[in-house]
Amino acid sequence: MQRRITLAHGSGGEAQEELIRELFLPAYSNEMLRPLTDSAICRAGEKIAMTTDSFVVKPLFFPGGDIGRLSISGTVNDLAVSGACPRYISVGMIIEAGFRMDSLARIVESMAGTAKEAGVYIVTGDTKVVEGGAADGIFINTAGIGLFTDGREPLAQKIAPGDRIIVSGAIASHGMAVMAARENLDFKPPIESDVAPVAAMVEKVLQQDGVINAMRDPTRGGVAATLNEWVGPDTDIIIDGQSLPVRADVAAACAILGMDPLYIANEGAVLLSVPHRYADTVLQALHSADLGRSAAIIGEVKKGRGNLYLLTEYGTHRKITMPRGELLPRIC
Amino acid sequence: MQRRITLAHGSGGEAQEELIRELFLPAYSNEMLRPLTDSAICRAGEKIAMTTDSFVVKPLFFPGGDIGRLSISGTVNDLAVSGACPRYISVGMIIEAGFRMDSLARIVESMAGTAKEAGVYIVTGDTKVVEGGAADGIFINTAGIGLFTDGREPLAQKIAPGDRIIVSGAIASHGMAVMAARENLDFKPPIESDVAPVAAMVEKVLQQDGVINAMRDPTRGGVAATLNEWVGPDTDIIIDGQSLPVRADVAAACAILGMDPLYIANEGAVLLSVPHRYADTVLQALHSADLGRSAAIIGEVKKGRGNLYLLTEYGTHRKITMPRGELLPRIC
Repeated sequence: MQRRITLAHGSGGEAQEELIRELFLPAYSNEMLRPLTDSAICRAGEKIAMTTDSFVVKPLFFPGGDIGRLSISGTVNDLAVSGACPRYISVGMIIEAGFRMDSLARIVESMAGTAKEAGVYIVTGDTKVVEGGAADGIFINTAGIGLFTDGREPLAQKIAPGDRIIVSGAIASHGMAVMAARENLDFKPPIESDVAPVAAMVEKVLQQDGVINAMRDPTRGGVAATLNEWVGPDTDIIIDGQSLPVRADVAAACAILGMDPLYIANEGAVLLSVPHRYADTVLQALHSADLGRSAAIIGEVKKGRGNLYLLTEYGTHRKITMPRGELLPRIC
Repeated sequence: MQRRITLAHGSGGEAQEELIRELFLPAYSNEMLRPLTDSAICRAGEKIAMTTDSFVVKPLFFPGGDIGRLSISGTVNDLAVSGACPRYISVGMIIEAGFRMDSLARIVESMAGTAKEAGVYIVTGDTKVVEGGAADGIFINTAGIGLFTDGREPLAQKIAPGDRIIVSGAIASHGMAVMAARENLDFKPPIESDVAPVAAMVEKVLQQDGVINAMRDPTRGGVAATLNEWVGPDTDIIIDGQSLPVRADVAAACAILGMDPLYIANEGAVLLSVPHRYADTVLQALHSADLGRSAAIIGEVKKGRGNLYLLTEYGTHRKITMPRGELLPRIC
């Protein structure tokens, strides 16, 4: 019979202990997690970065990834773009009773693999089970801690006129992959999400000699949301539509659905604002990383009045506003 | 019209930014949260404790507390019983579309107040909104970081024959309060939960000269679960039923419902295993704290074979096993 999650798996008794010892512990195994105490004891340092994200993506499995890979990558990436070295991850799961145990095992394996890829340790966790119908399959929260090895902190406030805006890879694939999977849009081959931990790529960028003013992962709200947050009251950002890397299948899907790739979530890409004279150095560092091979300069920061513009193929400037309304729900 | 949460509040766009700036930021205000960057930058030290918990309690508001107070206390308490000084908290919310905005505001105020009481900062957060029916009102995850100021780490492995088992206050009130509220059991006055941050009380205990071998907060699975985890292969723990502090209303409710207070969750109590000669010192420290006024020695550790026994009023020993099965779902 298909093994399924029951309320007992979340109740702090024997069934939960079995779940922890048979599934979580072997998958995540590390010395900080192993004591299974209320808190994990970890080495840190003077200054740490802390972040959290909850994941409610639907469907749970999609081309290129799943909620497990997403839940590790999302938090790792938030730490990495802060200039911190991602190190420790906590995992909080809320599971609906009746959820298939083999699906949970796949998700856990995916989390363990992605954590290894990102160089982070899953050090503590918690599992709650709610009755059937009270949640939608599984929701995962991760929180993360990163360490600072030196003083470099990219900050939006450092962005200045003359900066070049760089994106580390093709945009909009995560949002479109999940959308296509959810709506059963029959793209062949299927659109694959870019979901990945960007820590190694960011590390290459931080270790070169160039200066990074700001760095972000453009997730919900896409590139449009991040760049809108980056324009200051006295600057504009102008991005060149022609230089935006978008995969052909993603561009086609966007066109069919009438969606603008600028507003679609990414989960393995990074946006950077870099002083002009360092732009090529940073670009080379990105190109040397697996995830950064299609990195491109897509725009620049100018003196202005707090607006984001897209330079269209017709040479006109189109104002790109902050995303409003629903966007795509449950993309991450 | 009643303001309600919409999918837009979770989509990374304008509505979400408004929610953050108008509700979360004023409530939690601190210098680490204020930049609203992907990660909060925090001062730490060589060694930190990290923990996480998700909260799915039903109902969201119950006598003595609510999901907000619970979500801060639970994580603070896990850090405190590790011997760490609770410091930074992350908050991940998963909210069902249609949730009342005034309920969210009450929860946020409760979190802010409890954080203040516990001396912790809410430094980072994330909000996801799922469509109506895909979650049950609101689920909250908190992760926490605590700092170590010295080498004291209570650990279950330190427990030794001769240790006294101490509980810091009356047991079983949280579980019974939530249960009574959920099932509309008409106790008058209503049974109040003990939910509270224990950090200040634990600090008093750690600052006295006595030695603490082990310390835990007996939440899900109650005192029975914690003490079962504490017995080693060569020890037994014997608790004296007569010395167990249980409030009269809680005892009555347990009797009516046929439930054993030993298995019922606590959210503001601490169990300690203390060498015999330090038991009185520790007890005095507990009595000096607001939450610890009814602290009592409830049992002791003996050489044995890995069992937990209750000494009954008839002088017999009843074996208390690890809780099995469902227990009470959605108590925290």
